[in-house]
Amino acid sequence: MNKSPIGVFDSGIGGLTVLKAIIELMPFEDTVYLGDTARVPYGTKSEATVVRYSLQNAAFLRSFGVKLIVAACNTASAYALGPLQEALDIPVIGVIEPGSAAALSATDSGKIGVIGTEGTISSRAYRDVIKAGNPQAQVSERACPLFVPLVEEGFLSTEATDIIATHYLGEFKDHNIDTLVLGCTHYPLLKETISRVMGKGVRLIDSAEATATEVKRLLVEKNLEKCEDGKATEHRFFVTDSPSRFVSVGRIFFGDHLPAPKQIDISKQDN
Amino acid sequence: MNKSPIGVFDSGIGGLTVLKAIIELMPFEDTVYLGDTARVPYGTKSEATVVRYSLQNAAFLRSFGVKLIVAACNTASAYALGPLQEALDIPVIGVIEPGSAAALSATDSGKIGVIGTEGTISSRAYRDVIKAGNPQAQVSERACPLFVPLVEEGFLSTEATDIIATHYLGEFKDHNIDTLVLGCTHYPLLKETISRVMGKGVRLIDSAEATATEVKRLLVEKNLEKCEDGKATEHRFFVTDSPSRFVSVGRIFFGDHLPAPKQIDISKQDN
Repeated sequence: MNKSPIGVFDSGIGGLTVLKAIIELMPFEDTVYLGDTARVPYGTKSEATVVRYSLQNAAFLRSFGVKLIVAACNTASAYALGPLQEALDIPVIGVIEPGSAAALSATDSGKIGVIGTEGTISSRAYRDVIKAGNPQAQVSERACPLFVPLVEEGFLSTEATDIIATHYLGEFKDHNIDTLVLGCTHYPLLKETISRVMGKGVRLIDSAEATATEVKRLLVEKNLEKCEDGKATEHRFFVTDSPSRFVSVGRIFFGDHLPAPKQIDISKQDN
Repeated sequence: MNKSPIGVFDSGIGGLTVLKAIIELMPFEDTVYLGDTARVPYGTKSEATVVRYSLQNAAFLRSFGVKLIVAACNTASAYALGPLQEALDIPVIGVIEPGSAAALSATDSGKIGVIGTEGTISSRAYRDVIKAGNPQAQVSERACPLFVPLVEEGFLSTEATDIIATHYLGEFKDHNIDTLVLGCTHYPLLKETISRVMGKGVRLIDSAEATATEVKRLLVEKNLEKCEDGKATEHRFFVTDSPSRFVSVGRIFFGDHLPAPKQIDISKQDN
């Protein structure tokens, strides 16, 4: 039993899908969320830059005495999970291991597709983790850079979104995949479109849900859970740029009850 | 006559269209270009953050003894031109005044449309400058957040681009504009699509060309030109993130002869 909060960081807004899944699964836990909106997106940035930003974000969360940190950004998970685990004395969970494990459980044929940002896909992190779990698995990967801006513009299910999704996902049809990992926190919002393009035979894996399940498993295993104590839970939100866009776009991900975050200056954070 | 280079900065890659126009118009001038690719884009970030980043970028360029700085990013021009001019002892030119002046010259009806990023449009900078030039002008503005990722993905003239452009630009038809300012350095690459959607009666204003013309006028006026001196000109390129993406995507804007840039750490730059 540990009353410290769970820390969650993301390059911006998308990690709210992971936070939401954590809160739904563990309603008595307190949380601290940091969205690095002054430097978003990470998906097109280099490994060294993403590692540096991730360490700064984790150091900020650590200052709240968090008991566990979730890198709720696929690109940060792909590039920075090792450096984060090395730098910190508390457990750090990314979204790639849980998503990969869920894909391996779901697949019958062992043919798995992965979509994500340029950074996530070029890191080959999903491929490596899936192959480590099952060397026989066949993994096809594709970066879909327009999906994040489409989601943030609210183009969730339009003709243009369909055309772009068909362009990106077409090649998976030749690979006969039966499972597709949505390797970016924004993509679950395109589930309907992606499902329509891929057909009903393909299972979609939402890393947010898989990650929340893994967080819970780890807290139980390490006896770090916070149980009901009669007090209201506290969910704190921080951003590195102005709160206004976070609130307006964040509602797409978290719901209308997303509170206004506090702005901090991350460049002053030592890592 | 002044042999110092011209400094140009942008949030990333788009400013290369402005640099290209400058080099074409003033072939004997040396240049230093900084693309802040570690923090791109600026278009969705707040005024305070864009001002801070712009001052750091200008301080870096100043360290090369540049004689003039061009803020080749519309969002930086919209938010940071005043603070830059205040902080620096050399001329600073943005892209908004030249683009606005070109629009006022081009329009017959005085009905002008402006498209740009969320930051540029919400700053109302184009509207203010155009209205200052001609209080009778009628200005309609629209943010087009998907245009930048569409360009960077090479979706310059596709069905999806047409649908999205029709979505964004539709309302301008009701306003009967005869001139449309492409208020983002990426947008000139969508000229063909935008032209098709708007029809032939609407003139498109490319701020890059207008800005190069203004740079030349100012250098002549202040006697700061560099004339032919028999030496090869030097064009230096710097980025704040890994050079690889800058080179691959930058070619869309600058041409295949774009040299590899050097990476610097902008967060260590005092402003």
